[in-house]
Amino acid sequence: MAVPVPRIGRLPSGRRDAITDVAGVTVGHVTLDEGDVHTGVTVVRPHGGDPYLQRVPAGFTVLNGFGKSVGLMQVEELGVLETPIALTNTFAVPAVAAAQIRQCVAANPDCGRGLPTVNPLVFECNDGFLNDLQRMAVGEVDYQRAWSTASADFAQGSVGAGRGMTSFGLKGGIGSASRLAGAHTVGALVLANYGVRDNLVIAGHAVDPPSPSVPVEPEKGSIIILIATDAPLDARQLRRLSLRAGAGLARTGSVFGHGSGDIALAFSTAYTLPQRPGEPMPAVAMLHDALLDGLFQAVADSVEQAILHALWRATAFVGRDGHARPALADLLRDAPTDAFAPLTLIKPS
Amino acid sequence: MAVPVPRIGRLPSGRRDAITDVAGVTVGHVTLDEGDVHTGVTVVRPHGGDPYLQRVPAGFTVLNGFGKSVGLMQVEELGVLETPIALTNTFAVPAVAAAQIRQCVAANPDCGRGLPTVNPLVFECNDGFLNDLQRMAVGEVDYQRAWSTASADFAQGSVGAGRGMTSFGLKGGIGSASRLAGAHTVGALVLANYGVRDNLVIAGHAVDPPSPSVPVEPEKGSIIILIATDAPLDARQLRRLSLRAGAGLARTGSVFGHGSGDIALAFSTAYTLPQRPGEPMPAVAMLHDALLDGLFQAVADSVEQAILHALWRATAFVGRDGHARPALADLLRDAPTDAFAPLTLIKPS
Amino acid sequence: MAVPVPRIGRLPSGRRDAITDVAGVTVGHVTLDEGDVHTGVTVVRPHGGDPYLQRVPAGFTVLNGFGKSVGLMQVEELGVLETPIALTNTFAVPAVAAAQIRQCVAANPDCGRGLPTVNPLVFECNDGFLNDLQRMAVGEVDYQRAWSTASADFAQGSVGAGRGMTSFGLKGGIGSASRLAGAHTVGALVLANYGVRDNLVIAGHAVDPPSPSVPVEPEKGSIIILIATDAPLDARQLRRLSLRAGAGLARTGSVFGHGSGDIALAFSTAYTLPQRPGEPMPAVAMLHDALLDGLFQAVADSVEQAILHALWRATAFVGRDGHARPALADLLRDAPTDAFAPLTLIKPS
Amino acid sequence: MAVPVPRIGRLPSGRRDAITDVAGVTVGHVTLDEGDVHTGVTVVRPHGGDPYLQRVPAGFTVLNGFGKSVGLMQVEELGVLETPIALTNTFAVPAVAAAQIRQCVAANPDCGRGLPTVNPLVFECNDGFLNDLQRMAVGEVDYQRAWSTASADFAQGSVGAGRGMTSFGLKGGIGSASRLAGAHTVGALVLANYGVRDNLVIAGHAVDPPSPSVPVEPEKGSIIILIATDAPLDARQLRRLSLRAGAGLARTGSVFGHGSGDIALAFSTAYTLPQRPGEPMPAVAMLHDALLDGLFQAVADSVEQAILHALWRATAFVGRDGHARPALADLLRDAPTDAFAPLTLIKPS
Repeated sequence: MAVPVPRIGRLPSGRRDAITDVAGVTVGHVTLDEGDVHTGVTVVRPHGGDPYLQRVPAGFTVLNGFGKSVGLMQVEELGVLETPIALTNTFAVPAVAAAQIRQCVAANPDCGRGLPTVNPLVFECNDGFLNDLQRMAVGEVDYQRAWSTASADFAQGSVGAGRGMTSFGLKGGIGSASRLAGAHTVGALVLANYGVRDNLVIAGHAVDPPSPSVPVEPEKGSIIILIATDAPLDARQLRRLSLRAGAGLARTGSVFGHGSGDIALAFSTAYTLPQRPGEPMPAVAMLHDALLDGLFQAVADSVEQAILHALWRATAFVGRDGHARPALADLLRDAPTDAFAPLTLIKPS
Repeated sequence: MAVPVPRIGRLPSGRRDAITDVAGVTVGHVTLDEGDVHTGVTVVRPHGGDPYLQRVPAGFTVLNGFGKSVGLMQVEELGVLETPIALTNTFAVPAVAAAQIRQCVAANPDCGRGLPTVNPLVFECNDGFLNDLQRMAVGEVDYQRAWSTASADFAQGSVGAGRGMTSFGLKGGIGSASRLAGAHTVGALVLANYGVRDNLVIAGHAVDPPSPSVPVEPEKGSIIILIATDAPLDARQLRRLSLRAGAGLARTGSVFGHGSGDIALAFSTAYTLPQRPGEPMPAVAMLHDALLDGLFQAVADSVEQAILHALWRATAFVGRDGHARPALADLLRDAPTDAFAPLTLIKPS
Repeated sequence: MAVPVPRIGRLPSGRRDAITDVAGVTVGHVTLDEGDVHTGVTVVRPHGGDPYLQRVPAGFTVLNGFGKSVGLMQVEELGVLETPIALTNTFAVPAVAAAQIRQCVAANPDCGRGLPTVNPLVFECNDGFLNDLQRMAVGEVDYQRAWSTASADFAQGSVGAGRGMTSFGLKGGIGSASRLAGAHTVGALVLANYGVRDNLVIAGHAVDPPSPSVPVEPEKGSIIILIATDAPLDARQLRRLSLRAGAGLARTGSVFGHGSGDIALAFSTAYTLPQRPGEPMPAVAMLHDALLDGLFQAVADSVEQAILHALWRATAFVGRDGHARPALADLLRDAPTDAFAPLTLIKPS
Repeated sequence: MAVPVPRIGRLPSGRRDAITDVAGVTVGHVTLDEGDVHTGVTVVRPHGGDPYLQRVPAGFTVLNGFGKSVGLMQVEELGVLETPIALTNTFAVPAVAAAQIRQCVAANPDCGRGLPTVNPLVFECNDGFLNDLQRMAVGEVDYQRAWSTASADFAQGSVGAGRGMTSFGLKGGIGSASRLAGAHTVGALVLANYGVRDNLVIAGHAVDPPSPSVPVEPEKGSIIILIATDAPLDARQLRRLSLRAGAGLARTGSVFGHGSGDIALAFSTAYTLPQRPGEPMPAVAMLHDALLDGLFQAVADSVEQAILHALWRATAFVGRDGHARPALADLLRDAPTDAFAPLTLIKPS
C-alpha cells in the first residue's frame, strides 16, 4: 500500500513489532478456502512447552460479552491458562475446543483422571458475511495443523482465523505489534472483526465521509485482543493490563458496540505455575503496581498499532454469495503518502 | 430405600416436588451405557417454544470456577439465555455445544447471518471415575434425543448427565425439588458430583465416621445447580437468587472445594425477551427486592432437597475399570427409619 | 478563549449541551477558597424529589479502582441510587457522606429504623496539588449548600468539586455535555483530574511536544464520569452504558493510569423504584439491547465533549504553596482558530 | 451458660481459638453506653506496623451488598488493604473513615501529596434496634481509642462494634475462632447482626419452634466476617478463601437475606507489599491452589464457630426505647448440657 502504516505513540517497538517479540511466544495459522468456506484457525502458544503442565498466569477483561468464547470462567478462578490460545469463527468453537481436549489427553494420559480435566481456551468472531459459517467446516485437525506451524514469524492480514473477518466495512483479520516499556516487552495480537465504516479513525484522522461504494453495516462484529508480556505480573495485574486494550481499541473509533464480543486477555511469560501440586511453586517478586503505567501505555499503543497492521495487511476479498470487502488500500488509493503524519498542534519553538 | 428422604425447611413443595412445578419447564435425558462408557446428557427446556426467539431472563453465580461450562459470558452481558440448558460430562461439552448450534440453525436459517449467532449453554461435571470420558462418546445426536424427550415428568438419580457422577464418595447424579414462596414457585435441579465422604451432612446430621469400606477421595467434583421460578425478576435479581443456592449446598457439607465447578444459574419463566429488536418488549413490573427473602429461602431449601433426592434415588454402580460407587442406601442399611427426624432443641411447651 | 471548543461526533446536542438536558436533572456547586483551601462540592440531583423514596436505576463501571468513592457496593446489589450524587475531594468524602445521612434522616425520620439505612453516594478526586486537602476543610454544611443551589443551569470549569482539580498538567474541573440518540437524550458530567501532559489529545490532535514551561507530572489523577439518560433502561443496561464512558475518555489520551480512580456511573430518569415494598412497582418496557448502539455512541461522544468543556472553561490558578496550573487557553494562545477543524482524510468527491 | 458451646468440625483450634492466633493480629474495642446510645468501634490490626507503608494482601466476597461499608473498590483493584480494619454501626462509618484518614496523615505527612491518599476500610452493621444510631454518637476519637487498645487478648460478645447488634432475634455481637490447617492458621472474627429467629441452627440443631416470648423480626441485619491467615496467598486466592465464609454462615441458618450487608474479607500476614515503589517487592512462593481445600474447610469451620462464640458470649440487653434482646442463654436455660452433642448417624462398628 502506498500510504505507510502510521506509527502509534512514543514507545519503541520490538524487533518484529509483533507479539512474538515477547520471547517464547509463537503464532501459527491454518486458512481454509474452498467454495463458500473462507475461515481458519490461529493459535498463539505462550511458550514452547505444554501449558497444561506449566501453566501461564493470565487475566482478562470483557469489554462487551456478546460472544461465544470458551474458557474464561476458569481463567478468572485460577488466574492461569493451560492450553495454547485458539482463535476461530463462532461456530467452530466446539471443534477447536474438542481438539484442545484431545491434544491434551494425548500428551497427558492422566488428564481428567489423576490430573484435572483441561480447560479449552477458544476465542471467536463471526465471519459469516464472507464465510459460510453454518457449514461448520473447521475440523479438529485444523487446530492441530495451526498449532504445529506456530513460529515467531507469522503472517498477518487475511489469514488464519482472520480469513473471513470484516472491520469497518473493510477486510479485517489478524494484526500484531509490540512496544517496549523500560525493561519489559508488551506484544499484542488482534483478530479484528469490528467497527462501523463511519467511525473509523486512523491515528487520530477520521476517514470521512464514507465512500458511496461501501455499504454501511450495523455493528455486528467483534474483536479478540491478546496481550503478552515478559513482565512479572500476577493474574490481578494482568487483568489490569488487559483493560487498557480498550483504550487502544477506542482510539480507532470503537464504542464497544452491542453486538460484539470484545475481549482482551493478557498473559505473562515471566514464570509458570505447575499443574501438579507436588512441584515447587516459583517465588516471584511481582512488579510494583505503581510501575505499571508504562506497561499500560504499551498495551494501548500496541493494540492500536496491531489493529492498523490488520487493516493494512488485509487484502480485498470476495467471499460467500459474492459478498465483497474492499481493503483499506482501496480507500486510501488517492491519499497522500504523508496522510497520517502526526497531528501536532503546538510546534516546537 | 427404607429410610425416607428427610424434608427440608418449612415451605410447602409443588405437586411434583421438582423443577417442573414451575409451569412450562420440562426435562429430558439420554443415558449412555456401553462398555466403559457410562454418561449422558440432560436437557432443561425453560419453555415449550424456541428460546433463541423468545429469550429467557437469567442470572448466575460462580461459587467455584474450576469448570468448563460454556455460555455464561453472554448470559452476564445480556441477562438472557437463548438455548435449552444442557448438562453433560466435561469432555462432551464441545459436542453438545455443536448440537445446540446446529439445532438453532436448523430452526432459524438466518442465525449467524441476519440474526446473531446463538450462544450455547452447556454445563458439565467430570464423571471420569466411573465413565471413560476420554472416549468422548457423547455425540451431537445425544443432545437432540435428550431434548426430544423433555417432559414435566422425568427420572432422577443415575440417569442422563448424572449417569456417571459421584457425590460424597457415593453414587450421585440428578436430583430435583421445588418450594412455594407465597404466590411464586421455585424449582431446583442439580447435577451432583461433589463432596468428600467425611463431610456429608444430611438434614443437619453428620454421617460419621466414614465407613471403612468407602475409600476417601480428595475433593475433585462439581455441582451444577439450575433454579427456575415463575416470579417476575430481572437478570440482576435472578443473580441474587442464584447465589442462595450456595446456602443450600453448604448445608450438605460442601465448602465449595478447590477442584470443583460449582455454578448456580437461575431463570424466570414470567416473561420472555424477543430476539428481534422489532418485536415489542414486555412491560413487566418486577418483584420489589424487599420481597425476595421468601424466594431466597425457597432456593436454599429446594437446592438442599434436590441434592438429597439425587442421593436417595441414585443406585449403586460399577463402572469403568471396575470402579464402584455405593448408593447412600448401602450406607443407611442399618439406620432407623426415623434417623432424620427434625433435630429440635427447644420443644414446644 | 480564542480557539473555539471542537465539536465531537455527528450526533446533535441538547439545548444546553449539558447533563441537565436530561429532563429533571439539576446540578449545584459550592466552592471553597480561603488560604490554601481551594476545593468544593458538586451535587447532581437525578430528579426533583427525594431519591431515598423514589430510587433511581443505576449501573457503573470501575475503569480503575484506585479511589475512595463510597456507595457503589449497594448500587451493584440493588441497581439503584437513593441519594443525590456528590462529588468532592478525597479527604472530604466522610464529611459529605455524613451530610447525606443527616439530610436523609431529617427528611425521613424512620430511616435506619422502620426503613433501611440510606446509602451515601460520594465520588472523589485528589486535588491535593492545588488544595490543602489535609485540612479536611469541607464540612457537612457545604454539601447541603451545594444541594440547595442545584439548577438546570450551572457553571463549569474551576468550580465546585472541580475547584482544585488538575488535568493533563493544566487546570481541570467540571465539564458537561449532551447528545441526542434518536428519541433519547444522554448527558455527561465529568470531574476531570487526570491525564499526563504529554498524552493530551484534543479531537484527534496530539498537543505535542509538551511546552517546556509545564513540568510533567506522573499520572496520579482521577476522573469521575456521570451519565444521565431518559431512555428506559435497567441496571444491567446502565452498566453497559457506563462502560462506554471509557471510550470517550480514551480518545483524550488516557490509558486509565494506575494511580487513578476512574469511575463511570449511569442512571436513568425514565422511571423510579419505590423504597417501600408496599408501593406498586412500575411496569416498564425497557429498550431492546440491540437498540443501544446509538446510546453507546452518545455516551462516548458526550464524555469526550464534557472533558473538553472542562478544559476549555477552566481558568489558570495558583493554589496551595504557590502551586500553579495554567489553563488550556495559555497553551493555545498562539494556535489558529481553526486548529481543531475535523481531520478528514477522504474528502467528498 | 450451662450449655457449653459446641465445637465445629474436625480441625484443631489455635491456642486462643480466636483470630489473634494468627501471629501479629490484634483486636481492640471501644464501647459506648450512654442514654440511648449503645454502640462502639472494633479495630483489627493485621500487624504491629503501619499498614499504609506495609500493605497487606487481601481479597473479599460480597455475599449480599445491601450495606454501606467503605474501601472495597480499592481492595479489589490493588489487592491490598492499607489501614487497620474498622467495624462500627452504619451511620458511624464517616466518622471512623475520617479518623483513619487523620491517623494516616498524622503518621505520614506526605499522604495525599507525595504519596497516595489513604483508603479507609470501614465495615458496618445496623444496630438501630438497640442503639439510637441517628444520634451519630461515634466520634473520631473512638476509633483512635479502639485502635490503641488492640491486643492479642480481647473481649467477645456485646462489646465494641457488637454492643448494639442483634442476631436471630437474640443479642449478637463480636465472636472469633481459629482453626489449624496443616502448617497454617486461619482465624475468623465476626460482627453478627443477622438472622431470623425461626432459622437459627446450632451445630446442625434447629432451635424450633420459636419461643412465643421472642417476637419474630423480618431479616434486616448483616454480618461482617474477617478472615486472617498466615498462609502465603495472593489477592486472588484470598478472595477464594473469603467466599468460603459463606459456607460457615449458611450452616447457621442464613440465606444471605435481602436486607443485609454480608461481606467477608480475608487477608494474609505472610508478607507485606510496600507502599513506595522504590522499596523491594517480596519474592513469595504462594501456596498451590490445589492445596487450598484445608484452608477452605478452616474458613467455613472457624466462621461457624465464631458466630456461635458471639451468641454464647452476648448478654441480654435492654437498649433504646426499652427495646430488649434476650441472650441465647435465656433460650437454652432448660436445655440439657449435652444438647449439642455431635449428631452422628452411623456409629463406628
